[in-house]
Amino acid sequence: MNTDDSYQSGLVPADEIAQRIARLQDFLQQQAVDGALMLDPLNMYYYTGTMQQGVVVVPATGDPVFLVRRSVERARLESPVQQILPLAGFSQLRSTLADLGLATDTLGVAEATLSVGVFKALAKAFPGTAFTDISGVLAMIRAVKSDYEVGLIRTAGALHAQVYGAIPALLREGMSEWELGAAIHQKMMELGYTGIARFAGSGMELFLGIISFGESGNYPTASIGPGGLTGLSPAFPLVGGRKQLGRGEPVFVDIGFGYHGYFTDATRVFSLGPLPQAAMEAHALCLDIQEAVRCRLKPGAIPSRIYDEVWGEFVHSRAFTKHFMGFGSNQVPFLGHGIGLAIDEFPVIAAKVHTPLEANMIIAVEPKKGVAGIGLVGVENTFRVTAEGGEKLTPGTDEITMV
Amino acid sequence: MNTDDSYQSGLVPADEIAQRIARLQDFLQQQAVDGALMLDPLNMYYYTGTMQQGVVVVPATGDPVFLVRRSVERARLESPVQQILPLAGFSQLRSTLADLGLATDTLGVAEATLSVGVFKALAKAFPGTAFTDISGVLAMIRAVKSDYEVGLIRTAGALHAQVYGAIPALLREGMSEWELGAAIHQKMMELGYTGIARFAGSGMELFLGIISFGESGNYPTASIGPGGLTGLSPAFPLVGGRKQLGRGEPVFVDIGFGYHGYFTDATRVFSLGPLPQAAMEAHALCLDIQEAVRCRLKPGAIPSRIYDEVWGEFVHSRAFTKHFMGFGSNQVPFLGHGIGLAIDEFPVIAAKVHTPLEANMIIAVEPKKGVAGIGLVGVENTFRVTAEGGEKLTPGTDEITMV
Repeated sequence: MNTDDSYQSGLVPADEIAQRIARLQDFLQQQAVDGALMLDPLNMYYYTGTMQQGVVVVPATGDPVFLVRRSVERARLESPVQQILPLAGFSQLRSTLADLGLATDTLGVAEATLSVGVFKALAKAFPGTAFTDISGVLAMIRAVKSDYEVGLIRTAGALHAQVYGAIPALLREGMSEWELGAAIHQKMMELGYTGIARFAGSGMELFLGIISFGESGNYPTASIGPGGLTGLSPAFPLVGGRKQLGRGEPVFVDIGFGYHGYFTDATRVFSLGPLPQAAMEAHALCLDIQEAVRCRLKPGAIPSRIYDEVWGEFVHSRAFTKHFMGFGSNQVPFLGHGIGLAIDEFPVIAAKVHTPLEANMIIAVEPKKGVAGIGLVGVENTFRVTAEGGEKLTPGTDEITMV
Repeated sequence: MNTDDSYQSGLVPADEIAQRIARLQDFLQQQAVDGALMLDPLNMYYYTGTMQQGVVVVPATGDPVFLVRRSVERARLESPVQQILPLAGFSQLRSTLADLGLATDTLGVAEATLSVGVFKALAKAFPGTAFTDISGVLAMIRAVKSDYEVGLIRTAGALHAQVYGAIPALLREGMSEWELGAAIHQKMMELGYTGIARFAGSGMELFLGIISFGESGNYPTASIGPGGLTGLSPAFPLVGGRKQLGRGEPVFVDIGFGYHGYFTDATRVFSLGPLPQAAMEAHALCLDIQEAVRCRLKPGAIPSRIYDEVWGEFVHSRAFTKHFMGFGSNQVPFLGHGIGLAIDEFPVIAAKVHTPLEANMIIAVEPKKGVAGIGLVGVENTFRVTAEGGEKLTPGTDEITMV
């Protein structure tokens, strides 16, 4: 494990939490919502700095209240939020907030992650309260990262690069995708990889990432990304499967790296010996497409315009459409996605996303191409939106590494 | 990886799926519910044998319909369900089911896992339909395992025992909890451990399990179990932390092992050199408590009665209450929990659970005791309910292994 790291460095600073709460309060005031109630680990962590069982309440004005079922002790050790109170059950929520002088006529909740069962219990605890969905707002707030967050993501990217740097020495003919995945995972745990990849609402599951040799990369997948894989079982269509590595086929590795909860996403392709020319050419065009997106990642740029321009100029016009962004039915209609505490953050670079980019948004760009009979090639890097275009936070070569 | 394993052995047999659907249909008919709509990966897998993005519809009578957004191809490769159709969006759901002659006046959904956002989209797609929560019924059906499922869980238990067997050789003075966790995880991946631990609705996160040295086991936790741990970061309060192993302190290891989606749960305690007498005595009493529960795990037994009897006879009467089932505020009010595709299945051995046990229910029993200034001791094994009492499916010694 990297020795300059510590549990303390993962404590979210008080001023960071205060800025996040202020941004949420701006929205609540604009929309005349009395407060936000958040129960999911991801938003709870963002606004309190800790993940407990409970409810964080951010009123439109005033201090947040963190009601914790388990563990109040731990919440107080980790969170800079001042008002941390024990929570026996939802039935006391309303009176507790009323005692603190907080209005609850209109409350925002994250419908994308809140279960119907928990929502019903909340609705019962707040008779007469109007609930409104603030999932989109919470996602937009998280989409723009602070310098503190960028620092953590930068560290994740540097560690991520160490993982990719270690892969050539791990490859050997005849090993299975699963074995390579296990070896990569071991390296990642050595580097302090905090292994749960969280999603903000897409209901996806992910473990480590995608390790696909050759045509495994074109195998049909339920994943919301372009990368096919077989996995070890229908109950675990993740990591990789039993296919053994041969010479001259793409080793497609798409993994996330998490550091204090913040993720970078990157894809690299390796091979034992030379790859067929079709794969090399497809990879080269993917790099061009990545650069075309990267140089457009500037504040004010419109994701739908980036998507249309790049798709028109590099994909349609070069007859690159077939199997681009996934083989056959794996094809996905985007070129990149926001990333941070969740793998599926805002914004997506896609045809219907018209909200302009802002500085310090973090976006993983992932042009990939299925090649029939060969496998999947292409690249992914995590970029920061800046006035000069995307700054790459996942160092290392984007070229295919031939071993 | 064990070589007799294969992806094919993870394909759920058609008769297995048919029996599950018949059990659900019995309930739907009794309750006059027209059909069940399931979207979560766990119930989808249970009733189709595959995990895709889509909706599985089990009508009260007749064949199930599996509507798949992504990937229809993969669903057809993995599932014995006959009617697998592409799903463009929820808006077409109602007409598709009507075309197949299925009534949709009353539909059951799993409110424990369905998000409010998705539920609202469903409700819009089925105007006039009355939705009812069937989370509890789905859990009760899954609680009683088939012989096929018991076979998979038995294999999980055998592999689990291999993991615990490897631990003594991994222990060395000065190593961190995280390092031990990484080494254990590596061993588990070698054995083909399918690493995502799923929960049926408690919203828990788990990665690997709990590795706690000494007093880490008494550290306050948000987990719904008795085991404390620090973790590497407030964003990842899982696996273990930076505490280094010393001589004469408990090495508390509570991990799950997953095989084709089915989990066993087991806890073992190790140490470098002898432990203090207080720890040894507490551990011995935990073993007595485990046996007291185990011998009661028979069809017809009432969980609340087991809980009350064992608590009265072994905990209260022996002044063992303090820090039993978790140190301080970590204390939890149960002695065991169902397990299978999810870690938090029915039934729980707790004071308010009055539904009788049935043969082939699978229950993890986990009496544990925090010892002030020393750490956590105790045991956990996964048992099958039989007429002779619980059959232990997680082999190996329950005694503390001194290295």
